Amino acid sequence: MPHISLPDLPGIRALMTYRPETSKPLNDLAEVLLRAPNSLSRGERELIAAVVSSRNDCHYCCSIHGAVAAHQLERGEQIVEEAKRNFEQADLTDKMKALLAIAAKVQQGGKSVTEEDVQRARQQGATDLEIHDTVLIAAAFCMFNRYVDGLATFVPQDPGFYRARGAYVAEKGYVAVSQEYLANAKGRQA
Amino acid sequence: MPHISLPDLPGIRALMTYRPETSKPLNDLAEVLLRAPNSLSRGERELIAAVVSSRNDCHYCCSIHGAVAAHQLERGEQIVEEAKRNFEQADLTDKMKALLAIAAKVQQGGKSVTEEDVQRARQQGATDLEIHDTVLIAAAFCMFNRYVDGLATFVPQDPGFYRARGAYVAEKGYVAVSQEYLANAKGRQA
Repeated sequence: MPHISLPDLPGIRALMTYRPETSKPLNDLAEVLLRAPNSLSRGERELIAAVVSSRNDCHYCCSIHGAVAAHQLERGEQIVEEAKRNFEQADLTDKMKALLAIAAKVQQGGKSVTEEDVQRARQQGATDLEIHDTVLIAAAFCMFNRYVDGLATFVPQDPGFYRARGAYVAEKGYVAVSQEYLANAKGRQA
Repeated sequence: MPHISLPDLPGIRALMTYRPETSKPLNDLAEVLLRAPNSLSRGERELIAAVVSSRNDCHYCCSIHGAVAAHQLERGEQIVEEAKRNFEQADLTDKMKALLAIAAKVQQGGKSVTEEDVQRARQQGATDLEIHDTVLIAAAFCMFNRYVDGLATFVPQDPGFYRARGAYVAEKGYVAVSQEYLANAKGRQA
């Protein structure tokens, strides 16, 4: 049961419906980090989010962003599972492995990232902006994960829920989807 | 030296100048969490940010938000130092101690927050919204701290720098101050 009285919705959706004022910048942040035009594909950025969420043991975020990534990546659920289990052994580019290694360091703490980690990514062709965005995506999911679990939101266990929702979010985006459920919540109150 | 090529500015200001697209939602989030009307005072919310940043060993965020809190709280720098050292023994209300205990749990991980932690805060008069905002402030600083240190931004050591900047930010706010330095950066480019 959630720690505070929340609308009957899963995960972060309950929190965002409860507090639209903070929902707005949080969804804007997810939109620019995970969906705006970028030399990293949407699937690659969602994969970083899923791997960090997995390492923070956040079932909701890991499952939903894993599902969005699977919808967007060629090898779908299989590559997401491989990356979560051990990204160094996964069928990913050397550049993605190096970026995921940076993300995994950020999950432990900002100071864990070394000059060698950054050099490795750069040698594999990562740009400054890609390194910046990888650090910020990883850091942002250290926030989202703590937010969702710190208030003990409802976590569906059915993989089918995440598959369907992931496909929907992948198509529509974070801002549009949040506007939808905020409008629904207003409708119910009226 | 920063891990990527950044403008010659301290801490998060370098990152926000480098990437205005992500700066916008990050400053909007700080503004609504730390400055918008709330039953927790601005000083109390900045104190939560400073204590979490201290526990994440982020010198820049801890110093700047400690300075903003000191500017806004009656007992100034002394209460900030007490809270960072041991908030349970500090001269704070029982409600603030209970909220800081929740924030300290969030810093460790979302699942560390227990029903007892939340009950304690509620018994001291904390509302659901105050508990929500405490969790999100703590989670957000687990992001900001990792962002600032994960890219190894420049960290001034002079306490006078933070004192002056903290007072300025406390007066102006995050969105206004960021608009200022983004405009300055544009001016330098032009």
